[in-house]
Amino acid sequence: MSTNHPASTAPRLPDDELNLIDAYWRAANYLSVGQIYLLDNPLLHEPLTPEHIKPRLLGHWGTTPGLNLIYAHLNRIIRNRDANVIYITGPGHGGPGLVANAYLEGTYSEVYSAIGENVDGLRKLFRQFSFPGGIPSHVASETPGSIHEGGELGYALVHAYGAAFDNPDLVVACVIGDGEAETGPLAASWHSNKFLNPVTDGAVLPILHLNGYKIANPTVLARIPHDELEALLAGYGYRPITVAGDDPANVHQQLAVAFDEAFDQIAAIQQAARVDGETQRPRWPMIVLRTPKGWTGPRQVDGKPVEGTWRSHQVPLAETRNNKEHLAQLEEWLRSYRPDELFDDTGALRPQLRAIAPEGTRRMSANPHANGGLLLRDLDLPDFRDYAVAVDKPAAETSEATRVLGTFLRDVIDRNRDRFRLMGPDETASNRLSAVLESTDKTWLAEIDPVDEDLAPSGRVMEVLSEHLCQGWLEGYLLTGRHGLFNCYEAFVHIVDSMLNQHAKWLFSSSEMTWRRPIASLNYLLTSHVWRQDHNGASHQDPGFIDHVANKRPEVVRVYLPPDANTLLSVADHCLRSRHYVNVIVAGKQPALTYLTMDEAIAHCTRGLGIWEWASNATGVPDVVLACAGDIPTLETLAAADILRRELPDLAVRVVNVVDIMRLQPDSEHPHGLSDREFDAVFTPDKPVIFAYHGYPWLIHRLTYRRTNHAQMHVRGFKERGTTTTPFDMVMLNDLDRFHLVMDVIDRVDGLGTKAATLRQRMADARLNARRYTREHGEDDPNISGWTWDSGFRASEATSMAQDTGDNE
Amino acid sequence: MSTNHPASTAPRLPDDELNLIDAYWRAANYLSVGQIYLLDNPLLHEPLTPEHIKPRLLGHWGTTPGLNLIYAHLNRIIRNRDANVIYITGPGHGGPGLVANAYLEGTYSEVYSAIGENVDGLRKLFRQFSFPGGIPSHVASETPGSIHEGGELGYALVHAYGAAFDNPDLVVACVIGDGEAETGPLAASWHSNKFLNPVTDGAVLPILHLNGYKIANPTVLARIPHDELEALLAGYGYRPITVAGDDPANVHQQLAVAFDEAFDQIAAIQQAARVDGETQRPRWPMIVLRTPKGWTGPRQVDGKPVEGTWRSHQVPLAETRNNKEHLAQLEEWLRSYRPDELFDDTGALRPQLRAIAPEGTRRMSANPHANGGLLLRDLDLPDFRDYAVAVDKPAAETSEATRVLGTFLRDVIDRNRDRFRLMGPDETASNRLSAVLESTDKTWLAEIDPVDEDLAPSGRVMEVLSEHLCQGWLEGYLLTGRHGLFNCYEAFVHIVDSMLNQHAKWLFSSSEMTWRRPIASLNYLLTSHVWRQDHNGASHQDPGFIDHVANKRPEVVRVYLPPDANTLLSVADHCLRSRHYVNVIVAGKQPALTYLTMDEAIAHCTRGLGIWEWASNATGVPDVVLACAGDIPTLETLAAADILRRELPDLAVRVVNVVDIMRLQPDSEHPHGLSDREFDAVFTPDKPVIFAYHGYPWLIHRLTYRRTNHAQMHVRGFKERGTTTTPFDMVMLNDLDRFHLVMDVIDRVDGLGTKAATLRQRMADARLNARRYTREHGEDDPNISGWTWDSGFRASEATSMAQDTGDNE
Repeated sequence: MSTNHPASTAPRLPDDELNLIDAYWRAANYLSVGQIYLLDNPLLHEPLTPEHIKPRLLGHWGTTPGLNLIYAHLNRIIRNRDANVIYITGPGHGGPGLVANAYLEGTYSEVYSAIGENVDGLRKLFRQFSFPGGIPSHVASETPGSIHEGGELGYALVHAYGAAFDNPDLVVACVIGDGEAETGPLAASWHSNKFLNPVTDGAVLPILHLNGYKIANPTVLARIPHDELEALLAGYGYRPITVAGDDPANVHQQLAVAFDEAFDQIAAIQQAARVDGETQRPRWPMIVLRTPKGWTGPRQVDGKPVEGTWRSHQVPLAETRNNKEHLAQLEEWLRSYRPDELFDDTGALRPQLRAIAPEGTRRMSANPHANGGLLLRDLDLPDFRDYAVAVDKPAAETSEATRVLGTFLRDVIDRNRDRFRLMGPDETASNRLSAVLESTDKTWLAEIDPVDEDLAPSGRVMEVLSEHLCQGWLEGYLLTGRHGLFNCYEAFVHIVDSMLNQHAKWLFSSSEMTWRRPIASLNYLLTSHVWRQDHNGASHQDPGFIDHVANKRPEVVRVYLPPDANTLLSVADHCLRSRHYVNVIVAGKQPALTYLTMDEAIAHCTRGLGIWEWASNATGVPDVVLACAGDIPTLETLAAADILRRELPDLAVRVVNVVDIMRLQPDSEHPHGLSDREFDAVFTPDKPVIFAYHGYPWLIHRLTYRRTNHAQMHVRGFKERGTTTTPFDMVMLNDLDRFHLVMDVIDRVDGLGTKAATLRQRMADARLNARRYTREHGEDDPNISGWTWDSGFRASEATSMAQDTGDNE
Repeated sequence: MSTNHPASTAPRLPDDELNLIDAYWRAANYLSVGQIYLLDNPLLHEPLTPEHIKPRLLGHWGTTPGLNLIYAHLNRIIRNRDANVIYITGPGHGGPGLVANAYLEGTYSEVYSAIGENVDGLRKLFRQFSFPGGIPSHVASETPGSIHEGGELGYALVHAYGAAFDNPDLVVACVIGDGEAETGPLAASWHSNKFLNPVTDGAVLPILHLNGYKIANPTVLARIPHDELEALLAGYGYRPITVAGDDPANVHQQLAVAFDEAFDQIAAIQQAARVDGETQRPRWPMIVLRTPKGWTGPRQVDGKPVEGTWRSHQVPLAETRNNKEHLAQLEEWLRSYRPDELFDDTGALRPQLRAIAPEGTRRMSANPHANGGLLLRDLDLPDFRDYAVAVDKPAAETSEATRVLGTFLRDVIDRNRDRFRLMGPDETASNRLSAVLESTDKTWLAEIDPVDEDLAPSGRVMEVLSEHLCQGWLEGYLLTGRHGLFNCYEAFVHIVDSMLNQHAKWLFSSSEMTWRRPIASLNYLLTSHVWRQDHNGASHQDPGFIDHVANKRPEVVRVYLPPDANTLLSVADHCLRSRHYVNVIVAGKQPALTYLTMDEAIAHCTRGLGIWEWASNATGVPDVVLACAGDIPTLETLAAADILRRELPDLAVRVVNVVDIMRLQPDSEHPHGLSDREFDAVFTPDKPVIFAYHGYPWLIHRLTYRRTNHAQMHVRGFKERGTTTTPFDMVMLNDLDRFHLVMDVIDRVDGLGTKAATLRQRMADARLNARRYTREHGEDDPNISGWTWDSGFRASEATSMAQDTGDNE
């Protein structure tokens, strides 16, 4: 463990440079305080009065001086080394600081021309902050240089790593607040250094900012002995460099040395790996910065300590409009930064300060990596049709959909080695995507044993047993202009529900910023899904992520349920080409029937839903619609249709398959929504619809409640009934099985007569028999699991078996 | 950093004892393999044939021998020291191991009498595992001695700490798999030792089991240098004791020494804190155990290494029914444990082995702490009516609902210092529950500075910036028979969506185990909710947790939206008294109008929903129903009713308030559901219902789509439109404001005439004016924000203002 304490070294900064950096820091702090407080009088050209103060004081001061300090020192490094650096703000509440720096660099006025570099611009800059019609109080898509929402804590470091992958020239400076450091995702993110390849990836420079407090409490990492903290960080695989103090001049000196050392170490590590062929995992540098919370703000307010305590978290002086003492303290605080030295009379930053900021795209607020769409290059995609499985007739042969997709992804990876990654929480093989390992390895910088397979620093498949890391790495990778896919067990993707929320919010709000360019979509492949986790049991059975996603802005969310291998290929190709969406694909990995040729699959997926004529016997208006979405519901629906066609040949059945469930919504609610006329043409205005759906059944009601025929829609789906059992028992537990669907039809269609009543009883018997078979044999009746469109329903056997035993359970 | 390597010490176990422990371990391993493979011939009294093998081989062998080894050695410690120990299984996939040990201890046959301690019992034990109608493949509620589902990884250590709080006599042994250790929640959980009071809490003994692999990949912690790992664990605040090897006899010796040392250290720490008054945070011991994955299983299968690799994760020999070599290998593997030495001819465990297991409730499988309901004692609750706010007339005075609740919780804490905790992610003060600090402190074992307030090891309020830790600690605390409440910002509770899933599954499945007793409910107080996060912006605005919870089994979920302070008190009291539910309470923290006296509140909450006659002018059948659920929707609905009554006095308006939204569901779907007759009586069978709802509007449709009047229900709620703005602007953005509700009424009620048309235009103008006021002043128009039932709508002012400016935006 090598630790540097640069405090003990000689001063690094000549007085001139120190004074300039300090002035720059003061300027950023001044602009930050101004944003929180001031409606007007931005440069204090007149004495401060209550009318200059905002009526509602909203913002977070506590973390801001630290963010500004780091920013100023990174500018020095960028200028001195022509370094390519982006700045990730863990303590995203410190929005004023990042806005201030973007303004000081000129980027803000370039992006938002109404906010000029003059007194009027300053007034507008201040007024808009946390003001109705203005900008958010946190770092957000509105903030030039930011790649993520700063409201929900925990994802800074994992985003930083995602940004660094395949950007060998980039250094991602990542400020981690000591509050954020208590979160689970952040705690796990430190280990991302076992997945960073020093040859082809950039560097991440974590800066753990210990200001000691979160909202109202001290933080854990600030309150353990320093040697314990250093052990922890060394244990995470870093070499911490510590900077600590509350005297600005002293801290400036320390921090300048620390950044120099850190960048020297990064350069040395990259040189060793790239030129000298070093293959040992490096111990990357990081910085621990201990400075007071709310530094340079009011020391005491109303007799209580504020600077250096939790009381500086938000607005240290809360009564500035009504309390003269607070107002005076605010003026004193603002003037302590000596604004006249920083800005000239017109409100422009003085030239000697502007000169110490980087220029052009080297400015962290203007670095194109922080506006990933600018750098986005299309994927070079092979023709997905080349991976099609042959389908001579529908529902006759089987394939494993995700295994087929794996061959396509293998070649996607092969053709896009600089811009595509596949993430998975140790489930890529389980999800049957192993073909990808024919063209690449799994990223691994930790130790490798001789028995291991397919591990290498250069691997394009990233596996770690943390959905948070998979999601976060991918988000960081996409936000900086690349592509990828996250494959995950369906039930456990709920682990990242909240991350999805924040990313979806970012996608929507950034789509409203004309200066931000669209990025690649966040693609989920959810497999090992609810209906085929019979072997793992209840803990692995949850299809609710679709519901969660459906609550997000319709402009940015898409959900696809391809029923077989060829439709999965078509959907996956579409998703990989799309921009700025969250695409959720749910598909099975087990051997399953194929239904559509590639041409049919493309046509079907393009429409998003459609009538399957080959499975229907209704030529005109049907007596009943059997609708289905999802591979298992499709199988059960077709088997039900098969029974109905054989046993009740006079019943006109229409089979409808839905791939894109957003088509079910009205076109007023979702861009993919069908018009009412289109919807009625498919689902009829008045016939019973038995809808077999992959997930919780009420989602279909939520999507269709405005439709003409909604009252006639009867939805079967997962009703939270699961356990360790067989696949067919799973569908039976939830009344989604073919036999129950036939019973549903008989119950809903009027006037079917005694033949139907007899069939209904046979279906009930068949369910009992199936359950008995399963419990006796430990596997499903092959008459059921082996069903194909041609094999038919052996109703006679089921009936006789029920009669044999007399079981009427 | 003090590290012990007991390998270097002298042998601890005499040969006899070592042989007995090894035999016990072999017995557990034998039973584990038997469960995975065997339908019959459980003791190999005849040669193994394919008919003895299950048709589907489901289970996880890889982690199991390690779990069994640790169990056997803990038994030794328990016996030697009469220790009170429970066993938490992080690698919950190792279900066979925990079932095997419960069976060896006799607990299994006590709980499940059909599974006796004889050959027939063994046959049933084996057959039921992962078999339809049998038991899950993972540790689950069916497993005696378990306190949680083992399917989703990450929560073992946080549950262990939750179990240890306020159980001074208990040692919670917690096995952490090296796969699980990669998850975020687990990574954060290590720091729980800063929240464990050695005086009044028990001890947690983490056992990090490094078998090197997860499903298909090596693990990070197994593949960093040992000194780096030790630094990490020391950084987390532990003293690791390492045991490593692949020779059983040697590992037995090491592990015996390690456990002795760990328990000695625990005793010394507790003695120092409890007797000698030591107040420094102790460095608790932990064990690092490095043994091969799938240890004692097949070394090679089909020429490939299996023992010690990822290939042993599930079923090492997959073709035992069809492949003679696999079958022979399986028989050799099973016989390697020498079952004849372990069980007598009747199938009973030999007495010398039974004798080395603990007895009675000292058996980890029978420890009552692992069946928390057995130990549950009612809370001593003060009378919540004593905390009521005075309400002389409705909608006239304000209070802060959560601040009022805080006074009640203060006294709940005071009266239940051994059995109630309040959890919050650094938000308890922000959520205005600070009154609790009048009776207690915040738990804190890390360093305390002079400036800090309300921190102490004995605190009953637990604050850490990790929703995962808050949730996990509380789950562990509840599962072991205590009570608590988790207060959280509404938007960020999504962070624990997946944990909620698993806990809800546990609650439901455990309710079906007659031998498990009900535990206290998991209570959420969600505040700082979507409508009052206007200042924090979009990232803090998400009401979707209710939707997530509503997907869980109706038997175990309850959602309450009390509209004011007194209803919040009534609901909170009810939830704290309830058992075995997930209760979600959503309530505001800002000053808000009060509506009901305490008596009225109790009556209203008991009904769950009801007509507010005082706000309605309809005496019989209304022309329109204004329904509302949630504090802000209630405010806007009442203000809309006020406008309608003044401006359209002939319109018969009924106001309905909903506290318990599960009442909206049919009684066939949820135990709280209203009958259709009751529902129709409140909401009418055919009149327009304008429903103002706290969250995503479609949830109300999902709950009511089967109701007679569903087609007439028009729901307003959060449509994912948010930003940093003012409270009233937030409701306007989502069309939930009073003015829009009036417009909705006018749009939906037929035949209202020209006066209504004029009013509609005035409402549209009022919206424009409100928005303009907000953007000019940075706060809401006090005419709007100051509305009370008596103040009325100053429509004239709004209209004239619109006319003045001519703005028709």
